[in-house]
Amino acid sequence: MTSILQRRQFALVTLFFQLLFIVGFALFAKFDTATEHDLYANGKRVFVNTDFPLFQDIHVMVYVGFGFLMAFLKRYGFSAVSVNLLLSTFVTQYAMLLRGFLSPTFHDTGMFSVSVNEMVSADISCIVVLITMGVLLGRLTPVQFLLLAFCETTISVMVEHILFNILHINDGGRSLVVHVFGAYFGLAAAVVGQKKNVMEMDAEGSIYHSDLFSMIGTMFLWIFFPTINAAIQEPADARHRAIVNTYLAMASCTVSTFLVSSLTDHLGRFNMIHIQSSTLAGGVAIGSAANAMIYPYHACVVGMVAGVISVFGHAVLSKRLEKRFNIYDTCGVHNLHGLPGLLSGVISILVALLYADKEIYGEDTIYHIYPYFAGGPMNGDRDAYSQAMYQLAGMIVALTAAIVGGFMTGLVLRIRLWNQVEDPGFSYEANYYAKQEFNFPTKYMSKRRRAVEIDMLNQLENNGQIDDVY
Amino acid sequence: MTSILQRRQFALVTLFFQLLFIVGFALFAKFDTATEHDLYANGKRVFVNTDFPLFQDIHVMVYVGFGFLMAFLKRYGFSAVSVNLLLSTFVTQYAMLLRGFLSPTFHDTGMFSVSVNEMVSADISCIVVLITMGVLLGRLTPVQFLLLAFCETTISVMVEHILFNILHINDGGRSLVVHVFGAYFGLAAAVVGQKKNVMEMDAEGSIYHSDLFSMIGTMFLWIFFPTINAAIQEPADARHRAIVNTYLAMASCTVSTFLVSSLTDHLGRFNMIHIQSSTLAGGVAIGSAANAMIYPYHACVVGMVAGVISVFGHAVLSKRLEKRFNIYDTCGVHNLHGLPGLLSGVISILVALLYADKEIYGEDTIYHIYPYFAGGPMNGDRDAYSQAMYQLAGMIVALTAAIVGGFMTGLVLRIRLWNQVEDPGFSYEANYYAKQEFNFPTKYMSKRRRAVEIDMLNQLENNGQIDDVY
Amino acid sequence: MTSILQRRQFALVTLFFQLLFIVGFALFAKFDTATEHDLYANGKRVFVNTDFPLFQDIHVMVYVGFGFLMAFLKRYGFSAVSVNLLLSTFVTQYAMLLRGFLSPTFHDTGMFSVSVNEMVSADISCIVVLITMGVLLGRLTPVQFLLLAFCETTISVMVEHILFNILHINDGGRSLVVHVFGAYFGLAAAVVGQKKNVMEMDAEGSIYHSDLFSMIGTMFLWIFFPTINAAIQEPADARHRAIVNTYLAMASCTVSTFLVSSLTDHLGRFNMIHIQSSTLAGGVAIGSAANAMIYPYHACVVGMVAGVISVFGHAVLSKRLEKRFNIYDTCGVHNLHGLPGLLSGVISILVALLYADKEIYGEDTIYHIYPYFAGGPMNGDRDAYSQAMYQLAGMIVALTAAIVGGFMTGLVLRIRLWNQVEDPGFSYEANYYAKQEFNFPTKYMSKRRRAVEIDMLNQLENNGQIDDVY
Repeated sequence: MTSILQRRQFALVTLFFQLLFIVGFALFAKFDTATEHDLYANGKRVFVNTDFPLFQDIHVMVYVGFGFLMAFLKRYGFSAVSVNLLLSTFVTQYAMLLRGFLSPTFHDTGMFSVSVNEMVSADISCIVVLITMGVLLGRLTPVQFLLLAFCETTISVMVEHILFNILHINDGGRSLVVHVFGAYFGLAAAVVGQKKNVMEMDAEGSIYHSDLFSMIGTMFLWIFFPTINAAIQEPADARHRAIVNTYLAMASCTVSTFLVSSLTDHLGRFNMIHIQSSTLAGGVAIGSAANAMIYPYHACVVGMVAGVISVFGHAVLSKRLEKRFNIYDTCGVHNLHGLPGLLSGVISILVALLYADKEIYGEDTIYHIYPYFAGGPMNGDRDAYSQAMYQLAGMIVALTAAIVGGFMTGLVLRIRLWNQVEDPGFSYEANYYAKQEFNFPTKYMSKRRRAVEIDMLNQLENNGQIDDVY
Repeated sequence: MTSILQRRQFALVTLFFQLLFIVGFALFAKFDTATEHDLYANGKRVFVNTDFPLFQDIHVMVYVGFGFLMAFLKRYGFSAVSVNLLLSTFVTQYAMLLRGFLSPTFHDTGMFSVSVNEMVSADISCIVVLITMGVLLGRLTPVQFLLLAFCETTISVMVEHILFNILHINDGGRSLVVHVFGAYFGLAAAVVGQKKNVMEMDAEGSIYHSDLFSMIGTMFLWIFFPTINAAIQEPADARHRAIVNTYLAMASCTVSTFLVSSLTDHLGRFNMIHIQSSTLAGGVAIGSAANAMIYPYHACVVGMVAGVISVFGHAVLSKRLEKRFNIYDTCGVHNLHGLPGLLSGVISILVALLYADKEIYGEDTIYHIYPYFAGGPMNGDRDAYSQAMYQLAGMIVALTAAIVGGFMTGLVLRIRLWNQVEDPGFSYEANYYAKQEFNFPTKYMSKRRRAVEIDMLNQLENNGQIDDVY
Repeated sequence: MTSILQRRQFALVTLFFQLLFIVGFALFAKFDTATEHDLYANGKRVFVNTDFPLFQDIHVMVYVGFGFLMAFLKRYGFSAVSVNLLLSTFVTQYAMLLRGFLSPTFHDTGMFSVSVNEMVSADISCIVVLITMGVLLGRLTPVQFLLLAFCETTISVMVEHILFNILHINDGGRSLVVHVFGAYFGLAAAVVGQKKNVMEMDAEGSIYHSDLFSMIGTMFLWIFFPTINAAIQEPADARHRAIVNTYLAMASCTVSTFLVSSLTDHLGRFNMIHIQSSTLAGGVAIGSAANAMIYPYHACVVGMVAGVISVFGHAVLSKRLEKRFNIYDTCGVHNLHGLPGLLSGVISILVALLYADKEIYGEDTIYHIYPYFAGGPMNGDRDAYSQAMYQLAGMIVALTAAIVGGFMTGLVLRIRLWNQVEDPGFSYEANYYAKQEFNFPTKYMSKRRRAVEIDMLNQLENNGQIDDVY
């Protein structure tokens, strides 16, 4: 039975949230009141010049990069690109509100301000949800994805707040709060779902052209990774290091991905899934400490290790997770974001342990990277060892929150109230929402198909098998 | 009969215009003579640094955004991308010349100057023509498109001159001079054409992969909309508001597009045409007043209304326009640019009426937004009410010029001298230019096909059915 | 026989080089030690602000532009995009090392520094190799491509060093050291290879969607050409001229490409290969002197001539090269990069001859464009005539080095030790590496195919036709 609740559920849920957002903005949001002088002052010109092109790069990553990266499934191409767009615009608004409520300006004045800086942060929150979406692609309905985005964004903004404003760790490219959190949140939610792998539902899987579309996503993510790892770094030398380190790590990771991919094949060939996914692992693995690594060759080594780990994950680990733990990971997110993100956390611990030193970074820089390091404007008392312990604590917090939060969210999504994707082979109605490609019918084919369906539905209705349409 | 005039018409017309452009540039164009000091002065660095990345964003919108947005028709994919490229490069040169002749520098010295600023304006002129092209896609030959571009650019540059330099209205993101003008110009030209809808000529319409290509266009337009609405704004706080308002309007418009799209379907599914097109309506609707809206939630509301209107247009209005007025709109331009553009005009009137006030914007800013407001450097005498009336006048001028100009241009294009697209079902020769996909044969297939065709043509020639080839 | 050496050759060669790079970086690379003050000083802010967006544009050209431009071959789409990625990341690291060893900093301190500037240069080195790859696409194995990249990058960095630091010529957009060098290097290597044209191996050639993917590449290259021609120009007025001249040359070249393409067809239609390739010729042809051309209409004329030459090359010249000299040029690189590059060299000679004058450019600028012009900080003694002769010498050096280097490299690649692409129709094993599309199997199809192959291999092994697998 497709009841009105099922058919109009998405519209109702969306309407509720969108009105909530508008009310939130109406009551609490104002523009940043910086005067023109401030906007241009201090050689920073944060808003409309320097940082805006960086924001646009990240915007391309979110909408084109992730959207097309996930378009490789033959029957879920539209779904991937469209749900990507829906979730991103939803999360954008919600994350701006949430972060606003946590901001000092809100605390002081009861209003928070919005600016390009907040847009960058909101786009980064989108990436968290899109990573999780990669795990669950093809196994949730749009309503479930919206609820997932709501729950996950709430938790991820809290985690970010804890790591940055309470633990004061260095997670420059946000590998912990974005990549580790997003990946393990999704995997934990997938434990609850326990649907079969969508690949196996559809023998055809990806096809040639879908894979080329996916490469569009890969390429734009690849290209703009230096931006996202550097965008929010201060001061200039930290930002500069973040850019160059990411570039070197991506390059060496890509070469080693081809290397190991060829080794995993009995005839020495390459596997497109490695090339589409593992080539990006270098950017994830260098993320947390990209601003703090002081030897260029370290970045090359990190990239190489990330490539090896990620290909190994695709070739060996994913199957075991599926078989032993019933965790299905549609896009191999664990190998692209999860493992390299953990590697990044470990590296950020090592870097703090070995290099956190005023002599090395200079007074200007060290208190930007490690704000509570001894002797700085925050009156912190940390040394290299204690900072390293805080980094470890941050990693544990991110991982734990992801797993617990993901599991809880998975339980919420399982409530039978929400439209669910069913396994194929069921009856017409039940199956309807299972075939997500029907949610995005081709433009003009939909016209013809609609006529056929109305006939069909009328027939079902006459037979009493279905409620009144509309 | 395909006469030499038919076969070589495009080359002759193009040669004529291209030589004209070169002569125009040779006689009247020089580089901007700003010294290096000027280029870097005043914290603006307009040419090679600050504004150049913004120009590049707009460049991506014109060539990738519009090109691929219109590539959804199975048989017109090449045509869309290629004609997009042809028209843009044609309009670029012509618009630079035209605006040059209208510039104060030309008036004073008999020469006009070219710089990155002029390139931004030229790209914006391309967008006007590409919007119109969306209405008529599949129903004009390349020669007709060139003539259309010539006529439309002439009129649109005049209209822009009237609105900005005579009426002095605020149309920041150029919703009136670009979106409203382009859409209604095309619809008026379509009245004259009265060809059947190209969709109905071809039962297959779009196919899966074409729709994914189209999403590439949608995504790049979506991403860079904040840039185009903000690129030409001064001072920094107006530019900043334009960026953030556009971002918020796009986000809320996209969510509401999904919402309403799901409501228009009897089973609650989404329609790809809404997602490809209506998600962009928020950027159009916020355009005119994006620099002047001072409450973030206003942008959210405008975006939501734009999404509703645009989906409603696709779902309900387009069919009525076709049935009642014989106006075929291939890409649904009316719902993406026309209606949201009109909404933008109405909002710019309301914003002027309610907020045009020195207290609100500050002295620095208000005379940039409303140059003839009382008390400014132009010695204007306008208050909020009279500025609002000017905004209304601007909207009426743009709409009227578009409809009259489009109608006249449609008549010009109908002259039988020009190659025409014929309805299918005719004889070989007449039909030849009707099948635009033949104008862009696949790279290497063309070699084989050519051999077949030469045989065929020789046969026709021998039978006396066709003129000498070449 | 597929021996272990054949199956693991790629992995071994790649491992060798990647370790070499890491050791090189470990021993000799450090971060640029500019302090934050330097980074922001002098209105340049080279690293993280001004130049970084330009770098990102070039990055898009390298990875999306060239990658998808070459994806038009039905069976080589994955191969093109993936090998593009592999070679670029390989060259990036190697070129940084090589240029480091040639840098003054290395000479003085034994260490070289890496920064965004070096990343721009490394990306430009990638383009040299990608142009050559376009000539040979489909006819080399990945191992051969890697060796090609190694040899070519070595020679091209030397040539660049000679032209810029010894001959001191103006090659602003690097048309000589990138486009001429890359194209003729590839053509000379193709003489040695003498494999049949890959197009003729595969009757199907390109297909519709592949051509649309290719247009993605064309569009991004088209859009960002002004950036690459201007990115490394100083001072601001030279950079500004480079931007505007490139824009105008691209526009007029595109219009004339459509014009001439229509003339080359007996029915006045357009050929997609011209539109995908020749529309870019204007940017190549203007390159060398884009910073120095002082009349905008000159750029329009250069663009128009480039379009004519390039389409003529595709329509007439390529076939003759194939028939008479057995030189196969898979992507028509000679017509896009070779001929327009030579035109650019000639123009740079003429521009030096006619306009090299302190009065015309001003003292600030002329010594940036022609560093050894008389009276400058280098105590040079050149006048317009001698500078023009140096420009000529530079062109001859680039062309000669390309042809000799390409020929020698072609001989190296022919050594039977390396995996080779064989002509089709051979036995299973020999043929295996010939079908490059097998090197990039579709993601999930590979799983099923693998099972079939293992059966097949076991059977061959049992028959003694093949060595042990692994």
